[in-house]
Amino acid sequence: MEARDAADITASDLESFYRSVRSQSERLCECLEIEDYGLQSMDDASPIKWHLAHTTWFFEVFVLKVFADAHVAINPLYEYLFNSYYNGVGEAYPRPKRGHLSRPTVADVYAYRRHVDTAMEQLIAGAPEMAIRERVELGLHHEQQHQELMLTDLKHHFAQNPLFPSYRDDVLEPELAGVGDMAFIGHSGGIVDIGAQDGFAFDNECPRHPVMLQPFELANRMVSNGEYLQFVQAGGYQSPPLWLSDGWAIVQAQQWQSPLYWLHQNDEWFEYRLDGLHCLDLNLPVTHVSAYEAAAYAAWAGARLPTEFEWEAVADAWQPKEASKACFLESGHFHPGSVEMVTARAEGDVDAEVNGDRSSLMQGLHGQLWQWTSSSYTPYPGYRPLSGTLGEYNGKFMSSQLVLRGGSVATPRMHLRNSYRNFFYPPDRWQFSGVRLARDA
Amino acid sequence: MEARDAADITASDLESFYRSVRSQSERLCECLEIEDYGLQSMDDASPIKWHLAHTTWFFEVFVLKVFADAHVAINPLYEYLFNSYYNGVGEAYPRPKRGHLSRPTVADVYAYRRHVDTAMEQLIAGAPEMAIRERVELGLHHEQQHQELMLTDLKHHFAQNPLFPSYRDDVLEPELAGVGDMAFIGHSGGIVDIGAQDGFAFDNECPRHPVMLQPFELANRMVSNGEYLQFVQAGGYQSPPLWLSDGWAIVQAQQWQSPLYWLHQNDEWFEYRLDGLHCLDLNLPVTHVSAYEAAAYAAWAGARLPTEFEWEAVADAWQPKEASKACFLESGHFHPGSVEMVTARAEGDVDAEVNGDRSSLMQGLHGQLWQWTSSSYTPYPGYRPLSGTLGEYNGKFMSSQLVLRGGSVATPRMHLRNSYRNFFYPPDRWQFSGVRLARDA
Amino acid sequence: MEARDAADITASDLESFYRSVRSQSERLCECLEIEDYGLQSMDDASPIKWHLAHTTWFFEVFVLKVFADAHVAINPLYEYLFNSYYNGVGEAYPRPKRGHLSRPTVADVYAYRRHVDTAMEQLIAGAPEMAIRERVELGLHHEQQHQELMLTDLKHHFAQNPLFPSYRDDVLEPELAGVGDMAFIGHSGGIVDIGAQDGFAFDNECPRHPVMLQPFELANRMVSNGEYLQFVQAGGYQSPPLWLSDGWAIVQAQQWQSPLYWLHQNDEWFEYRLDGLHCLDLNLPVTHVSAYEAAAYAAWAGARLPTEFEWEAVADAWQPKEASKACFLESGHFHPGSVEMVTARAEGDVDAEVNGDRSSLMQGLHGQLWQWTSSSYTPYPGYRPLSGTLGEYNGKFMSSQLVLRGGSVATPRMHLRNSYRNFFYPPDRWQFSGVRLARDA
Amino acid sequence: MEARDAADITASDLESFYRSVRSQSERLCECLEIEDYGLQSMDDASPIKWHLAHTTWFFEVFVLKVFADAHVAINPLYEYLFNSYYNGVGEAYPRPKRGHLSRPTVADVYAYRRHVDTAMEQLIAGAPEMAIRERVELGLHHEQQHQELMLTDLKHHFAQNPLFPSYRDDVLEPELAGVGDMAFIGHSGGIVDIGAQDGFAFDNECPRHPVMLQPFELANRMVSNGEYLQFVQAGGYQSPPLWLSDGWAIVQAQQWQSPLYWLHQNDEWFEYRLDGLHCLDLNLPVTHVSAYEAAAYAAWAGARLPTEFEWEAVADAWQPKEASKACFLESGHFHPGSVEMVTARAEGDVDAEVNGDRSSLMQGLHGQLWQWTSSSYTPYPGYRPLSGTLGEYNGKFMSSQLVLRGGSVATPRMHLRNSYRNFFYPPDRWQFSGVRLARDA
Repeated sequence: MEARDAADITASDLESFYRSVRSQSERLCECLEIEDYGLQSMDDASPIKWHLAHTTWFFEVFVLKVFADAHVAINPLYEYLFNSYYNGVGEAYPRPKRGHLSRPTVADVYAYRRHVDTAMEQLIAGAPEMAIRERVELGLHHEQQHQELMLTDLKHHFAQNPLFPSYRDDVLEPELAGVGDMAFIGHSGGIVDIGAQDGFAFDNECPRHPVMLQPFELANRMVSNGEYLQFVQAGGYQSPPLWLSDGWAIVQAQQWQSPLYWLHQNDEWFEYRLDGLHCLDLNLPVTHVSAYEAAAYAAWAGARLPTEFEWEAVADAWQPKEASKACFLESGHFHPGSVEMVTARAEGDVDAEVNGDRSSLMQGLHGQLWQWTSSSYTPYPGYRPLSGTLGEYNGKFMSSQLVLRGGSVATPRMHLRNSYRNFFYPPDRWQFSGVRLARDA
Repeated sequence: MEARDAADITASDLESFYRSVRSQSERLCECLEIEDYGLQSMDDASPIKWHLAHTTWFFEVFVLKVFADAHVAINPLYEYLFNSYYNGVGEAYPRPKRGHLSRPTVADVYAYRRHVDTAMEQLIAGAPEMAIRERVELGLHHEQQHQELMLTDLKHHFAQNPLFPSYRDDVLEPELAGVGDMAFIGHSGGIVDIGAQDGFAFDNECPRHPVMLQPFELANRMVSNGEYLQFVQAGGYQSPPLWLSDGWAIVQAQQWQSPLYWLHQNDEWFEYRLDGLHCLDLNLPVTHVSAYEAAAYAAWAGARLPTEFEWEAVADAWQPKEASKACFLESGHFHPGSVEMVTARAEGDVDAEVNGDRSSLMQGLHGQLWQWTSSSYTPYPGYRPLSGTLGEYNGKFMSSQLVLRGGSVATPRMHLRNSYRNFFYPPDRWQFSGVRLARDA
Repeated sequence: MEARDAADITASDLESFYRSVRSQSERLCECLEIEDYGLQSMDDASPIKWHLAHTTWFFEVFVLKVFADAHVAINPLYEYLFNSYYNGVGEAYPRPKRGHLSRPTVADVYAYRRHVDTAMEQLIAGAPEMAIRERVELGLHHEQQHQELMLTDLKHHFAQNPLFPSYRDDVLEPELAGVGDMAFIGHSGGIVDIGAQDGFAFDNECPRHPVMLQPFELANRMVSNGEYLQFVQAGGYQSPPLWLSDGWAIVQAQQWQSPLYWLHQNDEWFEYRLDGLHCLDLNLPVTHVSAYEAAAYAAWAGARLPTEFEWEAVADAWQPKEASKACFLESGHFHPGSVEMVTARAEGDVDAEVNGDRSSLMQGLHGQLWQWTSSSYTPYPGYRPLSGTLGEYNGKFMSSQLVLRGGSVATPRMHLRNSYRNFFYPPDRWQFSGVRLARDA
Repeated sequence: MEARDAADITASDLESFYRSVRSQSERLCECLEIEDYGLQSMDDASPIKWHLAHTTWFFEVFVLKVFADAHVAINPLYEYLFNSYYNGVGEAYPRPKRGHLSRPTVADVYAYRRHVDTAMEQLIAGAPEMAIRERVELGLHHEQQHQELMLTDLKHHFAQNPLFPSYRDDVLEPELAGVGDMAFIGHSGGIVDIGAQDGFAFDNECPRHPVMLQPFELANRMVSNGEYLQFVQAGGYQSPPLWLSDGWAIVQAQQWQSPLYWLHQNDEWFEYRLDGLHCLDLNLPVTHVSAYEAAAYAAWAGARLPTEFEWEAVADAWQPKEASKACFLESGHFHPGSVEMVTARAEGDVDAEVNGDRSSLMQGLHGQLWQWTSSSYTPYPGYRPLSGTLGEYNGKFMSSQLVLRGGSVATPRMHLRNSYRNFFYPPDRWQFSGVRLARDA
C-alpha cells in the first residue's frame, strides 16, 4: 500500500467507506441458505463464512489489536482460525480444512462482525492518526478482494452440485449484442510509464517506472464463446503443438475438454453461470479459462497474450473513453455481457456505434473479465513490501504466478485501476478470467 | 438377510418398528445446528444430512420403486445423489464430494423423509406381502447401522475443529468404577456352532456352521486407558517389533503417537469425547484405536487378539448373565463407561460384585466398544448374498477388512446380536473400537 | 522354521545343500547382461543384483556375525544396503531406491558372494552345532524364495521394455495338450489336519492343527487362457457386480483390461513370457492375475476360490498320485504348460490318460502356477514366530494378504510342500498366480 | 536457432566440430562402469545411456531421416524409445521409465552412435546445403546441452548411493583462494540491448531488443559456502518471512535443511562432489541451491537476485576482461573453484590481484556456476520459434521457469555466450546453480 492518499481521507469519509464496504460483503450473502456458507469444494476456494470472518479478523488483528487497547476478542481462538497465511501473526488453521468448521455458526460470525464493527467505528470516529487510517483503508481494499473471491469461490462450490443451484433469483441477464469481427488496434511502443499513480494502490503496483515496449497490436475485444468453441471443435484440446508443455500435461492429467464450467450433454453445450445452467451463448466472452488455455487459443489464432505492460499502456491511452460504464460487481449481472457491450454503451462513442463501425473501438478493457497476460507476477524495480507482518500481503506470492488485468464482473468498481495487478497460477480457472489477444506489430 | 422372522411380524409391529427407527434417527439430530449437518471431514465419513437422506433413499429405491406403483419421487436426481455404492441402481454421486452439497437443504431433506414416510406408512398399513415386509425390515436395520455412523462420523467432523464442539449438553457422564487387574477366563475349544440363529440376521452371518477351536483364554474386560497409556509411555509407537508391517508403515507415514482422539498438551493427556474435550480418564476403556494399534498393544502385553469365532463362542456361553444391561446407544452416554461397569450391574452377579471378586466375571462383552478380532471378514461356508442389487449390501466388501464384535455405545440395542459381524479396515480408527485380549490356553 | 529336521542333516548333506542352492541362484543369471542386474521397475520388485547380495547378507548377518567370530565384512555398509526389512538388525536402505545403486557393481556382488561362501563352507565343514545348522537351512530356504522372486521380478522389469527382451534363448516351450472340460471333484469335508508335518517348514505353517470343513468341490484343473478370454470378451472388466469393491476400485483406477502381461494389438491378443512376446495360447493356464481378478472370474463362472484349508485337504489326499512330475523351476520352462499337462504325465495315471477320461483326475495341483485362495494370511492357533530378530521373517506380514498354494514354474522343486503358504496382497499380479475354482458341495 | 552463422561454416569446420562434440560426450563416460549407464534416480534425471542415445536420435530424426534418403535405422523402435518430448515426431517412451531399459545395452548404444556417425560424416563430407548445416549445428549445440546434463544427472544418481561413488579419479581439486568481503559494483541502468548478437544462438535469445533498466548494483562474486552456512545456522530454513510462499511450502514438505548435496553428520558439514564426499569447504561458492533458497538467502542478506537483463548488461560490459579463463567443462575440475578464483587468473587483472584489492573486479560471471535470476523464462518481443517440429525445442517450456545465466563447470566452454538463457523450475536443485546478489542502486 502506498499511503499517498490516506492523508486526504477525512474521518467521515473513512466511516462511510468502512460502512459501505462492510455492508457490501453482507449484501452479497443475503440470498444464501445457511448451508451454503460452509461449503469448501477445493483447497483454493474458501467457505463464504470464512471470508466474512477473515476480513473481520484483518481489522481485529492489524488495527484493533495494535491501536485499540481496550478491545477484547470474542474468542481468542479466532486469531488462529481465521488467519489466512500471515506467519508473522502465528500459525494458521489449515486452509484445506476451512470447510470442516461448522462452529462458529453463521450467526456467530455475524456477531463477530458486529463486535468488530462497533470497535472499528468507534476508533474511526475518534479522528485517528494517519497510520490507523492507512491500515483501515488497506483493510477495506482487502475486503473488496474477498468480495470477488466470495463470488468465484461460491460459483465453484455450487458447480459441484448436480442440481446447479442458483446464487440468487434477481440476477440480471447479461446484455447481448451482435459480435463483429475481432480487430487489432496498434500501439507504437517506446518508453511508457508503468505502475501506480495517485490514490490508493497496493505495494505490488509500485514504484511507477519506465518500461521499453516494442510496437504491438491489441485486440479490440475479448474472445467470444463462439470463437472459443471453434477452437474446441477444431481439436484444440487434442493438439499438443498448441500448448505450453506444462499446460499439455495438465490437459492430459485432468482430462480438460473445455472451459471449467462448460458442459457437453447430448451434443449440446451448456454453461453454468451463477444463476444456474444455461445454453452456451456464443456472443458472450469465453470465461473461466486457465492461462494455458488462453495461450493455446492464442497460438491457434495466430496471436499471443499481451504483456501486462502492453495492457497498461493501452489502458492508459483509452481510459477516458472506455472505463466509465464498465460492468463491475455493482451491475448485478454476475456474468460478463456481450464481448461488444461495454464500449457500445460508453457515452463518448455514440457516433461510432451508430455508424456501426466498431472495429476501431477498444472494448471491454475494464470490468467483465480479468484478462490473462503473459507476464509473470514479479516485483517492479525498486519494489518494497509493506513493513512488518503486512509485508506478507503481496510480496511472498511473486513466484510462478501470472498477472491478470482489467477487473471483472465480480470486482467492486472502485477497487479497480489501470495499474491493478491481479495474479493467479497458470492452471487456475475458477476466476472470471478471459482472453484478449495481442500480436507483434 | 435371512428372512426367517419377517413372517412373524404383524403389520402393526412393523409400523411401530418403522416409526421407532425413523424417529430415532431424527432424535439423534435434535441438538445440531444447521451448519453441522453438512460437514464431511474425510472421504470415509459422510455428512449427517446425507445419512438422513440415504436411509430414506433406501426405502424409496428398494421398496417404493418396486412395490408402490403410484409413488412419485420428489426429485429424480436424488436417486443419483443419495446412492451409496449400489452399482446395480446406477452411478452414484462421488463419496468424497458428499460434503459439497448445500442443496438440498436440511429442510429439504426432512421434507424428503416426510414424503417417503407417508408412502411407506401407507404401504405398511396395507398388510403387505412377505417380500415387502422383509425389505422394510432390512431397511430398518440398515438405518440403524447409519445411526451408529451418524455418531462416529459427527465425532470425526467435530474433532477437526479446534473449538471441540459438544454434540449435546445432556450427555450422561460415563459411569466410573475402580479397575481391578485384568484376568483371563478359559475356554476349552472344540467344535462350536457359529452364525445366525433365530430372528433377523444379515446375510454375512449365515449360514450357521460348526467351527473347530483350540483351547484359549479371553480377557474378562477391555483394555483401559491407563493400561494403554503405559504402552504409549513405554515407547510402543516407536517399537517396530511390536507392529504388523503394514501397521508400522502407517504409524510412520501418519505420525501416529496415540489413539485417534487423544491430545497431548503441556504434558497432560486429554481425550475428545462427543461432549467436548476431557482429561484422559484412566479407568475408561481405550477407544478409537485401529486394529494395528490393538494388535501392537496385544503383542506388548504378551497376548493376541481373539478370533471372531472365539469371541462368539464366549458370548454364546455368557449371554444370559452378561448382555441384559449393556451400554448401547439408548443409554445416552455416547462414550463407553468404566471397563468394569457393565457386568458389575448385571443382576445375576450381585454376589460376585459384593464380594469384590470380579476376576471370574466376563465384563463388557456387549455394548460400550466394538472389539477388534484377528479374523478377516470372509464369507462363511455356504454363504449366499441377497439376490439382485441388494447382493451388493455385504458380500462385495469381503476383502482386506477385519471383523469387530460386540456393538458399542453408538449401536442401537436391538441391532446387536452375538452373531453380528461388523467390519472395518485395519487402519480405521473413527469407530468406537477397543481392545479385548486373548491368548492360547 | 520348525527345527524338527535339522538334527538329521549331516554336515556333508548341509554342505551339498548349501552349494546346490547357492549355485542355483547364479545359474539363473548366467544369460543376463550386466545392465539387466540393476533394473527395478517398481517398488515391489528388486534388482537381481540386490537379490544376489541380500541372500548373501542373510548368511552373513544371521550366521557368520553370530557364530563366526573371525569373520570380517567386505564392506560394513553392506549390512545397511542389503537389509530387506529386519528392523531388529537396523535401518534398511529404502526399498524403492534399490535400483539406484550402480555400486557395488555386479562383479563386486559376486565377490561378496565368494567371500561369504568361503566363510560359510568353512563353518559348515566344522560339524557345527544344531543351532547353526538350523540357521543355515533357513538361509537356504530363504534363498530359494528369492530364486522365485528373481524370475518374477525380472519378468516385470523386462516387461516395461517395448523391445520385450528374452530372458534366455534356451527356454523350453511349454508342453501343450488339448483342454478338456473342467470338472469338479468332491470332498466330503469334516475335520482335517492342517499344517506342517515332517521335515523343514516355516513358522507360519505351524502348528499342525485340526480344522472343520464343510463338503466342497475343487476343480480338476486351472482356468485356461481360453476360458479367461471369454470372461474378458464378455465384459468382465466392465461389470462391477462381479468384483469385490476394492477390486473394482483398482480396475477403474489402473484401467485394468486383462491379465498383467496380456497385450491387445490390432485385434489380436499377445502374452509376454520370459522368452519374449507370444501369441496368446488358449490352452495354457491363465497367469499373472490378481486375487481380485481370480475372484471376479470365479463369480462370473458361478464358482468361488477355495480356502487354503480346502486346498491342503485335497493336496494331502492326492499327493502320491499327483506331485511327482510337477513342473517346477528346474524344468527349464519358465512358463506354465497346458492346464492338463501335469497329471497326464503322472505315472500312476497312465490308464486314465489312455482312456481319455481325465475328468476324475486332479491336475496341476503342484508346480505351474500359484493358486489364489480366499484365505487371509493369518496365524494358525498356537502360532509362535521364530525368536529374536528372525521373528520378523513371517509374522509381521500377517495382515491384508491372501494365501496362495501349490508352487509355480519358478519355485524350486524341493522348496514346496503341501503345507506351504505363500502370501501376497490381493492386487498383486507379478507372481505366477492363476485360478483354480471351488464350489460348495 | 538463428542461422546467421551456419553460412560461414565450411564442411571441414563442421566435420571437425561434429567429431569434437560427439567424442566429447563419450570421453565423459570413459571412467564409468557399465552399471552406471542405466541409473535414473528421479524423473527429471535421465540415464547416461539415454543421453548418449537421444543425442544420436536427434541427428537421425532431424537430419538423416529428412536429408539422407538411404539411411536405414538400426531399430525402428529407437525412434520411440529415445524421443524426449517432440510430440511432432510421435509418442515418446515415458520419461520416468527411462531407467527401466536394460536393452539396448551400453554396447548397443555405442553401436547406434557409430551407425549414425558414419551416415552423418558422409552427409557432412558431401558439402551439404545450408539447411542441413544449420540442423547439424543445432544438433551439436543440443548435444552440448546434454553433456552438462550427463554430469548433473549422474551426480544426482550417485548421490543416492550411501557409498558416494566417485565419478572419476583424475578430477582436479578446485583451486582455492582466500575470500575477501563481497562488494557491489554499480550499473547506471538506462536502455541496454539484450539478446543474441553474432554467431550461433538459440531461438529463445532472439531477437535482440532494447530494455530499460533502473540503476542497480551487482555483487562482484558468488555467495560462498561459508556465507550460506551462516544463513543455515541463523535458522534460515526455519524462518518463513524470508521465503517466497511456494518456497516455504516445499521447505516444509521436503524437509529441506541445506543445499541439496550438503550432509550434516556428527556436527560436521560435508558436501558430495562428483569425486566423492568432502568436508564442506567454506571458500567455495555455494552450489545446488534452488531459486527459492537463492531468493531466501538474498532476503536474509538484504539483497535480491538480479534480473536476467541486469546480468546480461553487466556481462556485456565486463566480457573482455572476465570471460577468457572461466572454469568450464574442459577444465577437468567438475566442481566450482573458489569464489574469487576466476578473475584472479584473468591476465588483464594481474595488477589488481597483486595489489590485493579485488573489490572492484567482477569475478566468476562465466563458468563455475549458473546464476539464478529473478526473471521468468518468457519470450522476447518478436520471438519466433523454429519452424516445424523443432519449434518444440524451446518455446513450449516458457512457463513457470526461471532464467539462469553464466554457464557452469559442467558447460562446454564454446556452448556459452552472454545472451545464453538456461532455464529451470524454481525448486530445481540438481544443476550447478549458485547465487549472485544484486540490489537497487
